[in-house]
Amino acid sequence: MTHQTINEGDYVLLSLSQRKTYLVKVEAARTFHTHRGFVKFDDLIGKVYGSTVSSSLGIEFTALKPQLSDYIMKSTRKTQITYPKDVALMVMFSGIGPGSRVVEAGTGTGALTTALAHYVRPSGKIHSYEIREEFLKTAEKNLTRAHLIEFVELKNRDVIMGIDEKEVNSVILDLVTPWLVIPHAYAALKPSGTVVSFSPTIDQVVKTVEALKQNGFVCIETVECLMRGMQVERGKTRPQTLMTGHTGYITHACKSVKPPHKAVNSAA
Amino acid sequence: MTHQTINEGDYVLLSLSQRKTYLVKVEAARTFHTHRGFVKFDDLIGKVYGSTVSSSLGIEFTALKPQLSDYIMKSTRKTQITYPKDVALMVMFSGIGPGSRVVEAGTGTGALTTALAHYVRPSGKIHSYEIREEFLKTAEKNLTRAHLIEFVELKNRDVIMGIDEKEVNSVILDLVTPWLVIPHAYAALKPSGTVVSFSPTIDQVVKTVEALKQNGFVCIETVECLMRGMQVERGKTRPQTLMTGHTGYITHACKSVKPPHKAVNSAA
Amino acid sequence: MTHQTINEGDYVLLSLSQRKTYLVKVEAARTFHTHRGFVKFDDLIGKVYGSTVSSSLGIEFTALKPQLSDYIMKSTRKTQITYPKDVALMVMFSGIGPGSRVVEAGTGTGALTTALAHYVRPSGKIHSYEIREEFLKTAEKNLTRAHLIEFVELKNRDVIMGIDEKEVNSVILDLVTPWLVIPHAYAALKPSGTVVSFSPTIDQVVKTVEALKQNGFVCIETVECLMRGMQVERGKTRPQTLMTGHTGYITHACKSVKPPHKAVNSAA
Amino acid sequence: MTHQTINEGDYVLLSLSQRKTYLVKVEAARTFHTHRGFVKFDDLIGKVYGSTVSSSLGIEFTALKPQLSDYIMKSTRKTQITYPKDVALMVMFSGIGPGSRVVEAGTGTGALTTALAHYVRPSGKIHSYEIREEFLKTAEKNLTRAHLIEFVELKNRDVIMGIDEKEVNSVILDLVTPWLVIPHAYAALKPSGTVVSFSPTIDQVVKTVEALKQNGFVCIETVECLMRGMQVERGKTRPQTLMTGHTGYITHACKSVKPPHKAVNSAA
Repeated sequence: MTHQTINEGDYVLLSLSQRKTYLVKVEAARTFHTHRGFVKFDDLIGKVYGSTVSSSLGIEFTALKPQLSDYIMKSTRKTQITYPKDVALMVMFSGIGPGSRVVEAGTGTGALTTALAHYVRPSGKIHSYEIREEFLKTAEKNLTRAHLIEFVELKNRDVIMGIDEKEVNSVILDLVTPWLVIPHAYAALKPSGTVVSFSPTIDQVVKTVEALKQNGFVCIETVECLMRGMQVERGKTRPQTLMTGHTGYITHACKSVKPPHKAVNSAA
Repeated sequence: MTHQTINEGDYVLLSLSQRKTYLVKVEAARTFHTHRGFVKFDDLIGKVYGSTVSSSLGIEFTALKPQLSDYIMKSTRKTQITYPKDVALMVMFSGIGPGSRVVEAGTGTGALTTALAHYVRPSGKIHSYEIREEFLKTAEKNLTRAHLIEFVELKNRDVIMGIDEKEVNSVILDLVTPWLVIPHAYAALKPSGTVVSFSPTIDQVVKTVEALKQNGFVCIETVECLMRGMQVERGKTRPQTLMTGHTGYITHACKSVKPPHKAVNSAA
Repeated sequence: MTHQTINEGDYVLLSLSQRKTYLVKVEAARTFHTHRGFVKFDDLIGKVYGSTVSSSLGIEFTALKPQLSDYIMKSTRKTQITYPKDVALMVMFSGIGPGSRVVEAGTGTGALTTALAHYVRPSGKIHSYEIREEFLKTAEKNLTRAHLIEFVELKNRDVIMGIDEKEVNSVILDLVTPWLVIPHAYAALKPSGTVVSFSPTIDQVVKTVEALKQNGFVCIETVECLMRGMQVERGKTRPQTLMTGHTGYITHACKSVKPPHKAVNSAA
Repeated sequence: MTHQTINEGDYVLLSLSQRKTYLVKVEAARTFHTHRGFVKFDDLIGKVYGSTVSSSLGIEFTALKPQLSDYIMKSTRKTQITYPKDVALMVMFSGIGPGSRVVEAGTGTGALTTALAHYVRPSGKIHSYEIREEFLKTAEKNLTRAHLIEFVELKNRDVIMGIDEKEVNSVILDLVTPWLVIPHAYAALKPSGTVVSFSPTIDQVVKTVEALKQNGFVCIETVECLMRGMQVERGKTRPQTLMTGHTGYITHACKSVKPPHKAVNSAA
């Protein structure tokens, strides 16, 4: 049995400690510099993932195979707030899996897109709408790095103008005015299909829930999720002092085939 | 284009309202009784998922296609505490996806197994260990209902005695003494593979983290996740009063190929 | 040195275990019945607070002197949601202490009034407004039981019509439309005095904060507080499963002598 | 009726905005410099508390009378973690009020001492133990500034060696090894008196709870409190992103006169 080895051009997660990790591309004859010395990529090439390597200062790094959550975290800019905890719950509530066809809006830098593509491959597809071209470029780069670009159609389109796809399994929304997309989502979804929306403010949530009720959705639920790290050490175990107090609320619902009360969106 | 229709023998999620749902098997010429009247299954057969049907008391139910989270919730007994929020995070931290080979212990009633199988299909496999035979029977029934049994090998074996599989992508632990399984997990995992463990008490977490450190794992992290529902209604929006304060801690880590400090488990 | 002894007519907190306590009035020649047998009050009379006594079934109870938080908890009806955690924070944010003059509205069953009176005695006073006469009777009973009635003026008046008092240190609001009382609070308060308001919904908070901004208040802050119990036992320590997810938001602010932008309340 | 005016030597809370406040001593002919210009103290002297004053850059500051929570916050060093939320709950659980006699250990910089003294004045007393002399000096300064020093006895003594006071109402512990003080607390307390202990780690909590059980305490409870700020603005309301994830656990209990199981502390 052969283990998977690290080749030139691969991405590895260089792990210095529990907290400090780097997602880097392996390039022959080059080095990667950190505050704990530099690592020669040639020392990694040909080794199996999970191997350790010493920096120029003798500090040990582990060269891990990047996981989905590493790609998500490293795709995220500071201005974005879709954390792994939220991505995990949105994927779960969407009900998607291998083979699902999904519409996403907006793409942003592709953090959520990466997770969606990971779970619907190899036979499913993500159709991701984004109006800001510079974000699409970043997303394309991030999805390529994660070997997931082939499962995604990046569309430089305004989803508020409408959704091209039909009979999709789920519509995933992470944009400023999700309520304006709900009628389009209804039209695009299979009966019993799901909508999942992520919004930082309560007002966005109220408008989105109202649009869902008026447009033929049922089983509407909104939750927020707080994740807290633990500092685990015998005799000194305690929750961590630093914690993110809020990212956003997650609202999800299912499409009923019952005709909607009104065709238009009253929250507009 | 044809929508998916409800046939005899299918499972549907009968949704009365946002809160009250029933996962039921459609049987011709039979009825399903609720406190809001009975529903004739013959009224459902041939309709598309997402259709509405009236009960004998004129109350409207929506017949949804069950999602992954419905199967998880309806597989769970009161004595279990693996909620969708924990399942979602465990799947995310494990890094698994279509094609992954996974070891799980213990199976319990199959709630977590259902999620794992959902995400690794069609080419992956879950090898799930459980010593209590009556649980395996319940798990088999729940997995069959969710159409996922073919992706799972249920094993009536004590995982503390060892893991048969080699080169797996992830080992997922939800049992009383996870620390005793860590050396076996190391042996079973591919380099860079993941361990994810769920435990209700802090003492279990401390022992598990120590075992991970001593057995060649890196990037060890423990988190807890609090999920709170929102009551969303214009002018009356507020968090819900009822909330689950604790289910358990999730610990995850990656296998380094660096030889472990000690081969044995000092916490035993 | 003499300890304080239990006399006829006193209230004691009969404690069966960590979770089960009873606030009862000691009456000679009578008994108190529980599911663990009955306790003879004559067994308590003349003993010091903190003594133990056996029930008719041989179960041991401790007869504690009731603390402030016991009076608060036992004054609370299910329909009310001012928990000790909220009372504690409201008292802290109000800045009150011995000698403070305070306006409260509404009185409710007197749980918060009890805490306020406890902290301003002996030289301070609570002026508490309540429009529902039956609540005032219950509050009077609860305050009498806690030996605090002399520090409270119970007023069967609608605070929305105005506040009689002037130059008070703090105005504490726990009513459905706190924003309508903010202009009256400004008039009643000393310069630099505080308003503290408790509201379950976000919409109440938004209207109250707007009214505070428009009526000359500064240092406006809104918080929510989550309290979680721990189950502490060596080897089995963990947070408790049951938890109250939400009681209400606490908003507090200080009166500036700067003239308010508008004299009227725009949120009305 | 005359309002309270600002005099030379008084402390005022200069409030620039909701977030930025300064606790400063008013000194004639001097100025206070901020990044938004300087404020002349002569502009404040003779004005009532709550007045506004313009800085040299024309920025408006409000000169508030400092509240208890301001003194607490401004007494706290970064190394300390007793937040107002914890102080509020500890005071509530202790049951203390005007007239109470309280033992505290350790004093630290006097943040908690300030609150305790505030609530027991004018007839009560805080006896506060601290082994580090430099902390006592800081505490004395902070208590003097808050006009509360006369209600406090600062003792440069190791509380683990014993407590001098008898028949006190409450013993409040915020030190590294609270369990070693529990037998002394039992000896110092009135029957039915309270112990309240604050500890960051779970291991401290377990040892303290065990010591309480072994030394004749009942009604033992441990809680943790999470406080989250809200960003309140019509149309944009949401919880704040930044939040303190953990400060410490609060354990409280009552003294029973039942003789303790063992006189010694097994956790030592």
